[in-house]
Amino acid sequence: MKNIVVFLGPAGSGKTSLTAAFGRWLKAKMLIPSTYVNLDPGVEYLPYRPDVDVRDYVTVEKVMQDYKLGPNGALLKSAEIACKHLPEIREKVEKYPSPYVLVDTPGQMELFLYRDFGPRFVEEFREVGYIIGVVILDPTLVAKAHDVVSLKLQAMIVSLRLGIDAIPVVNKADAQTFNPRLLTDAAYLREQLAGTKGLSSEISERILELLDEYRLAIRIPLISSITGQGLEELYDLLHEIFCACGDLT
Amino acid sequence: MKNIVVFLGPAGSGKTSLTAAFGRWLKAKMLIPSTYVNLDPGVEYLPYRPDVDVRDYVTVEKVMQDYKLGPNGALLKSAEIACKHLPEIREKVEKYPSPYVLVDTPGQMELFLYRDFGPRFVEEFREVGYIIGVVILDPTLVAKAHDVVSLKLQAMIVSLRLGIDAIPVVNKADAQTFNPRLLTDAAYLREQLAGTKGLSSEISERILELLDEYRLAIRIPLISSITGQGLEELYDLLHEIFCACGDLT
Repeated sequence: MKNIVVFLGPAGSGKTSLTAAFGRWLKAKMLIPSTYVNLDPGVEYLPYRPDVDVRDYVTVEKVMQDYKLGPNGALLKSAEIACKHLPEIREKVEKYPSPYVLVDTPGQMELFLYRDFGPRFVEEFREVGYIIGVVILDPTLVAKAHDVVSLKLQAMIVSLRLGIDAIPVVNKADAQTFNPRLLTDAAYLREQLAGTKGLSSEISERILELLDEYRLAIRIPLISSITGQGLEELYDLLHEIFCACGDLT
Repeated sequence: MKNIVVFLGPAGSGKTSLTAAFGRWLKAKMLIPSTYVNLDPGVEYLPYRPDVDVRDYVTVEKVMQDYKLGPNGALLKSAEIACKHLPEIREKVEKYPSPYVLVDTPGQMELFLYRDFGPRFVEEFREVGYIIGVVILDPTLVAKAHDVVSLKLQAMIVSLRLGIDAIPVVNKADAQTFNPRLLTDAAYLREQLAGTKGLSSEISERILELLDEYRLAIRIPLISSITGQGLEELYDLLHEIFCACGDLT
């Protein structure tokens, strides 16, 4: 059984560069080779060499031309076409001996999460290995305590929709200064929420308490694909779940 | 102060047709005229006549050509450009006397929710009126009890990220038969979760209890833009919040 890491996150969160950086780190520091899988039919440039590439079957630009669709329609259509090729993609991945499979997902997270693509991927790959989702936000999206709650809820949605474990991370740690205590210090985060008036702060506080009680996502690694910061912490978190063959879902 | 309804949902959930159908219903049944605002720079065809249209400033296809970007990059760039025109869009909207403003958002929800576009829109329009988000999923996405929890969490994220009230709805009621009790009967939903093994079911159950305790999203309207089913229920829910000038956020 392989260790399958699926990188998810909204457009612009840096899924692709994190896929590349984590693969390089695994190879350099742990001497673990990875199979790189690109599932984004719309990507133009990849900073890693994909071993298996959905663009061999479908690209958004070709779908726009062939079906005379606008960008919205073409994105949906290409996710649909990609879906049909999952069995072939799986076969190709199985031929690689590497213990880790790093999966880069469509630029728009919702094409994977809220269409058949994600659930069908998980269905297809469950027998190939144990699957963990890494849910990425960038620091501009976690400026306030409320945002950190949103990130944890987003990871929870990934976990519920796909039926896999999901780890929230914050990427681009290098690009921006912000308050890391919001990510690392659960008590501090709750304090900040308590200091914010309104019903949604109160609800957020209670949801956090509940997630903390299950020890879900207490640590949120702060990562940089450029400096390598946080990659070891991410590896440790993944490793913990792969070893336990996680019972979170 | 106007009543501003923002239609949000992942690609393919039927935001645009619901915007049109709700506007038609408001006019026909309540004799209330609406101002239609299109914020999707990527849309090709609209089933309503937009009074204010972001495409007067930016379209994804033009951005692809002008900036030589692929579809992913062009979507991000066009959201960025759209953002800059929000003050002009606001001025235009203010010139219309209609009490309701119906706002259709980008095809890809995350361009609005997880970029500056959504927060900046809310900032700009807060003084124009009271804003409520309608978070739309289609029935294929609420087939299981877990999915209904995801929908409620998605509405919660919208509420936290944008600082507005958010109502979850299920669209395309006409297109598919599924179990409506999951949406209308909170006790039944909890029973279904209790019957599903695993930690995430247990957590989901407890999150639901918590949301129910705050009477958040107990009713999820089941809507059809084609038959008009559920539009009155949606109106009642919106009206309730507009009248109370909601204190949910």
